[in-house]
Order: sequence, then structure tokens, then C-alpha cells
Amino acid sequence: MAIQLYGFWRSNAAFRVRVALALKQLPFEEIEVDILAGRQFDADYAQVNVERVVPTLIHDGHRVFQSLAIMEYLDEIHPSPRLMPEDAQGRAYVRAMAMVSVADSHPLVVPRVRKHLAETFGADATAIEAWCRHWAQEGLATYERMLEQRPAAPFAWGSAPTLADICIAGQKIIADLYQLDVAAFPHVAALTKRCFALPEFADAHPFRQDGYPG
Amino acid sequence: MAIQLYGFWRSNAAFRVRVALALKQLPFEEIEVDILAGRQFDADYAQVNVERVVPTLIHDGHRVFQSLAIMEYLDEIHPSPRLMPEDAQGRAYVRAMAMVSVADSHPLVVPRVRKHLAETFGADATAIEAWCRHWAQEGLATYERMLEQRPAAPFAWGSAPTLADICIAGQKIIADLYQLDVAAFPHVAALTKRCFALPEFADAHPFRQDGYPG
Repeated sequence: MAIQLYGFWRSNAAFRVRVALALKQLPFEEIEVDILAGRQFDADYAQVNVERVVPTLIHDGHRVFQSLAIMEYLDEIHPSPRLMPEDAQGRAYVRAMAMVSVADSHPLVVPRVRKHLAETFGADATAIEAWCRHWAQEGLATYERMLEQRPAAPFAWGSAPTLADICIAGQKIIADLYQLDVAAFPHVAALTKRCFALPEFADAHPFRQDGYPG
Repeated sequence: MAIQLYGFWRSNAAFRVRVALALKQLPFEEIEVDILAGRQFDADYAQVNVERVVPTLIHDGHRVFQSLAIMEYLDEIHPSPRLMPEDAQGRAYVRAMAMVSVADSHPLVVPRVRKHLAETFGADATAIEAWCRHWAQEGLATYERMLEQRPAAPFAWGSAPTLADICIAGQKIIADLYQLDVAAFPHVAALTKRCFALPEFADAHPFRQDGYPG
């Protein structure tokens, strides 16, 4: 199958999809949409994705939006290896873990929010960074409490990575971007260390993408 | 089956789950967690949900977190009527539609964010309301563009409501809470009018719950 991914080096959501594609050994072409320069609002990209966000996955000409929906789609059309548990309770747990980053933490630090803070509250770079660090830490703290309650064995749901691990690893990347030490969150630190020991995670890290300014 | 829902009259995420339960005709007991008073941070509730958010669904003693995960879980254990399409492309579209509110719009107006704006930027009630209106409108505008591209027929994915319609209806509720007129978004207005004509949606509206101050 032919797969194209509209993404960006820094996009956490694009990272998630890159890991899912790599775990499933699906080759893809990545097309850059510079979300720091606002290219997601260009008329050209509006033809691709009216949501004006990255990533967009194109699979044999069919467009799929939103990282979580894309990962579930990939798991359904190409179920090997499985990134979701087989049972309903397991799937619910993995989806809930995913949402802590996808819905509760990451949305608060994306470019359009940083820009709106500057425009409405006159927030300068330092204030915006403090805002992002706050929500990044909230996400890490929530994951830490969840992993304390149900320790990874060795991944969040058993012996192999699932969508949960991909999203927790994404939260670690937000920490990397804002120079936060995850040592205060030992369960998260141990789990994400295991994730990034795998080439599928390590090679998808923003700092390893074309375009990363270093 | 015995179902309990930890929710709150104003919680958009609890609204979504109430609609899903009603469409499936599953009776449940709702337990109030006053998120405006910060009760989600109480030690008692930490025993229920370490994420410190509502809703939490308890099904035969098993806890399920996060509204989207809860709705997918309900659809898996009690598939009649289906709230998700049968095919992978349909499911991906419905999940992406859901995420526009669940991940991109609603997280920006929740109590902890409003509180943090006040604490870090000294935002007063007027500034916080303007912030919420901005993100509420962004969500409505995105839904409008998506529905222009793939008009509802008569619901977002065919002849019966899915998770997409529930989340779009939730976005209409945010508009109601902030006195926004959805007339500027005619596709959204028409779709959500159809939704709230159904008792399962209407009876789940925050303004019809115990605790709503009126």
C-alpha cells in the first residue's frame, strides 16, 4: 500500500503516527508542513485537511485525520503487530492512557495556543514556556499516578508496545522540548526509556527528523 | 449490568457518556463530582480515578476512564445500536470528528485551564470568557468546514447518530454555556438541531441535570 504522511519534525501527533508506522514496518513518504511558520493554514493544505492541523495520513488516496484515529485505522487495516489489546477492557485502558496526552495535556502546548496566549495576554517567551512546562508536568504526573496503580509489565499493557506507550513516549518528548527532567516521575522514566531503546521510537523522535534545527 | 457514572451537570465529557448510555438504553446511576468546586481533587475521588477528571464509568465493578474510551467500550460490550461505523474508513472518520472537540477544542475551556489563566496571567472573568469563546468558535468553525466537505446525511455518518454526532452536540453545548449563536455555522446548527430533537440528547443536556443552577 502507498502511504503519505503530512507531518512536521516537532509535531507530537506526527511522532505518534511515525512510531505506529515503524512498528508495523509500513514504509511511508513524509511531507513537511511547517506548523511553526503557520503553513497548516495555507490554502494548499486546506485542500488536504480542513482541520488545519497535522498529521494527515493518505492511504491509497484515502485521507485519515487525527493521530489517534490514524493509529487505530492502521491497527485495523494492518493488524500485525497489534497496537491495541484484544479485549474490550484492555482497549479501554489503552485508549484512556492515550487520551491523557492526546486530549488532556498536549492540546495545551500546541502552536495555536502559544500564539493565542501572546496575542490575548501579552505573554512573552518566558511566560509561554512556563505555561507549557506546567501542562507538560501535569501530564507526566498523571501518567506517573496511573503507572503506580498499574505498573508497566514491561510496557503499559503487557509485553509489547501499544498506543498507550506511544502517547506516553510523546509526553516524554514534550518534556525533552521544554528541558524537563522526568526523573521525578520514575515509572514514566523507566517506561519511556524502554520505549526509546527501540529503534521504532528512537528514529521517530523529533530531534532525529529532517528540519530539526538542532 | 450495573453501571455507575461519576459525572457533573456541566461536564461536557459526562454529557457525551450520558448520551451514549441513553442511546443504548442502559440504565445508570450518576454520582456527582462538583468539578467547579474542585471535588475531582479530593482524596476520595482519587481512589476512583487518579486522573482527577470526570467522567468515570463503573461497569460491574470495573472502572473505565476518559469519555471517548468509555463510549467505545460501551459500543463494544453492548453493540446495539452501533455508535461506530462497521468499516475502518468510517470508524476513522467518526473518531477524527470526535477528536475535534475531545482533543482540539474542549480541553482548552475546562476548569483547570480557566483557573490557571487566572493564576498565571491574572485573567479576570471577562478575559477567561473571551478565551473560552475563542476556542469554542474555533471548534465550531472546524466542524462547519468538515460538514461542508461531507454533509450530514442526516447525521455525521449516515442515518443514525454516532460518536461524531455526540461530540459535535457537545460542542454546541459549549456554545450554549458561552451564549454563542451557532447560526454562523449552518451545517453545525442543522445537525445539532437534529441531535437535540432526540430525547437521548436533549435529556443529557447540562441545563437539564440535577445541580444546574439555572
